Amino acid sequence: MSSTEPVPLSPTPRSTLTRSKERGRVERAELDAVLDTGLICHLGVVLGDSPVVIPTVYGRDGNTLYLHGSTGAGNLRAAVDAEISVAVTHVDGLVYARSAMHFSMNYRSAVVRGRAALITDEDERMHALRVIVEHSAPGAWDRVRPPNRKEMAATMVLAVDLTEASVKVRAGGPVDDPADVAAGVAWSGVLPLRQVFNAPIPSPDLGPDIETPADVTARVSGGVVTG
Amino acid sequence: MSSTEPVPLSPTPRSTLTRSKERGRVERAELDAVLDTGLICHLGVVLGDSPVVIPTVYGRDGNTLYLHGSTGAGNLRAAVDAEISVAVTHVDGLVYARSAMHFSMNYRSAVVRGRAALITDEDERMHALRVIVEHSAPGAWDRVRPPNRKEMAATMVLAVDLTEASVKVRAGGPVDDPADVAAGVAWSGVLPLRQVFNAPIPSPDLGPDIETPADVTARVSGGVVTG
Repeated sequence: MSSTEPVPLSPTPRSTLTRSKERGRVERAELDAVLDTGLICHLGVVLGDSPVVIPTVYGRDGNTLYLHGSTGAGNLRAAVDAEISVAVTHVDGLVYARSAMHFSMNYRSAVVRGRAALITDEDERMHALRVIVEHSAPGAWDRVRPPNRKEMAATMVLAVDLTEASVKVRAGGPVDDPADVAAGVAWSGVLPLRQVFNAPIPSPDLGPDIETPADVTARVSGGVVTG
Repeated sequence: MSSTEPVPLSPTPRSTLTRSKERGRVERAELDAVLDTGLICHLGVVLGDSPVVIPTVYGRDGNTLYLHGSTGAGNLRAAVDAEISVAVTHVDGLVYARSAMHFSMNYRSAVVRGRAALITDEDERMHALRVIVEHSAPGAWDRVRPPNRKEMAATMVLAVDLTEASVKVRAGGPVDDPADVAAGVAWSGVLPLRQVFNAPIPSPDLGPDIETPADVTARVSGGVVTG
């Protein structure tokens, strides 16, 4: 599960794009880039006979995507040893076209499919939790209290191999019909979007000697989350 | 399908929260608020025996959520007359806690479940496309070329009733263990996030007499998309 050897992206027919192929990406590094800059994923599981899509946090280590949650979470229990899908999407801009059907969005997306395995080894479970926390809060793990035995017992950790995934990227302006361009029917262009951090809000019960750590302030001054 | 009579949220057991109930929302207006401020949804369908999650645009009219896509899109064809799930999630902040397992995110999410119906009536299909375009580009439909017969023939429109949904909202600071607060182990607080628009980028082939429309410039000066 924790091999870090790169693997080819999309070796299976069901994860190979058949439409809008020009948006498809085939390099494994592009999958990692989409996953590593996302904050949440959308996990799809089959519950009963029906799909359900749940937003959740995640982390990546090499070819493994880690998910976690409460042992009491029915949606997550349904994922154990089952086929699942995980999507991570960044919206980079709204594409205004000259005709309704050419409106679009600029985005980067990854859709992973695979079987979710329940991790039972305590060392790998702890490692996975570190990977997940460090994914959304890089630099935080080493300064906080690690999970205790009770918290570990209440937590389920799942792993999915990143061997089957589709990555799509759309960038640039609208693709208008030449007749609409010639007719000059409407404005067209892109309205770019990005996520930014605001100033951190310290907890009111913080001691006066605890300053905002550098890994937090660096994110704010860096400004952009994605885009 | 296009009834605008409000319905209660989550009337079914499977869409009623059993965990973290304090995050659950029961008013229908809160579902609409999450859906109406989102730009994309994640659609979950079962393809073969496996779930797949796809990012896509959408629109809402009353109790109906509309989706669309190419008639050639296998993922969307799999949704016709089938159980699906649609999730819309806003991430509002990263919650830094004093202990690893209390890290969290502030978010607003809606998870819809239901059966997707293929819309065949041409008037409703056109109406749905207007709803979808106006969802991400309000004010744009009336100034652009509407779909022509060929485009309509290549487009599939699906509708899902908004009668079964879970809405969750987390806001505020970390919920730390009292012992960790007393020990003063680490900084804790919230790093708020928001999406903002950048200046619009007009298409290079725009005629000189076509100015950026007010509905586009208003979004930029408004600044915030969500949050």
